[in-house]
Amino acid sequence: MKTTLIVVGRTVDKNLIAAIDDYTGRIKHFAPFDIEVIPELKNARKLSEAQQKEAEADLILKSILPGDTVILLDEGGKEFRSTEFAAWIEKKQQITAKRVVFIVGGPYGFSQRIYNLASEKISLSRMTFSHQMIRLLFVEQLYRAYTIINHLPYHHE
Amino acid sequence: MKTTLIVVGRTVDKNLIAAIDDYTGRIKHFAPFDIEVIPELKNARKLSEAQQKEAEADLILKSILPGDTVILLDEGGKEFRSTEFAAWIEKKQQITAKRVVFIVGGPYGFSQRIYNLASEKISLSRMTFSHQMIRLLFVEQLYRAYTIINHLPYHHE
Repeated sequence: MKTTLIVVGRTVDKNLIAAIDDYTGRIKHFAPFDIEVIPELKNARKLSEAQQKEAEADLILKSILPGDTVILLDEGGKEFRSTEFAAWIEKKQQITAKRVVFIVGGPYGFSQRIYNLASEKISLSRMTFSHQMIRLLFVEQLYRAYTIINHLPYHHE
Repeated sequence: MKTTLIVVGRTVDKNLIAAIDDYTGRIKHFAPFDIEVIPELKNARKLSEAQQKEAEADLILKSILPGDTVILLDEGGKEFRSTEFAAWIEKKQQITAKRVVFIVGGPYGFSQRIYNLASEKISLSRMTFSHQMIRLLFVEQLYRAYTIINHLPYHHE
């Protein structure tokens, strides 16, 4: 199973970039993983929230391939404990031959077209974090999941 | 109101240190804030989980001052939305003349002596994150709370 994280907008904080790269490298020891960055909208300030979401949806849809399992990282999604998330990833590995795509939305959430495409919504926290930090939270948690699945001493319960 | 974050063990990841320092600097524009690091136990590997928690508690208790309001960052704590956390911080500012101390525990939680000292427990996520990342999550969220309280355009609802 390959996992892709689709994010809108480049990470600009060089410390966060380095921390995200660190976990990305560690995840790749366990399974194929990449982060696909959709460029931020150039004219975002001239668009309404709804228009921004639709324009982002157009770009996101170009990155989705037939057969992808699409999971949204969304405030309204299901919250997992780390061990539950690891069990969920392990199950996905067993039933998914193709790609699992996680998508981080922009500040206003997703277009309805993206919600329609998704099979599940996951929330990393009830709190809102910057889109750059959400990426770091996700890669740390995916790395943690693989260490739990592989019985490595990273996670303490 | 002064806020202190007490953490056990030094942050070693230089990217996370830089990101934490960035948010720490931003928080100080709004209110006094510092991070107090309790040195990691030198003989941790020779101690049981219970012994580690008690040894950490001895060190944590030395940092608590009379009149401090003690809040634990604990997996079993209350989860807030960011706006709820901001409202909670704002209320604390109104009723607390002294210091509010948040404490991040070690991997095995806290000694009962620390639980007894605390007035509340807060959870940043149902997921477990490394103690270094919890610090970053906390400072981003405290910064976000102050931007919400001060009606600054950082948080989108």
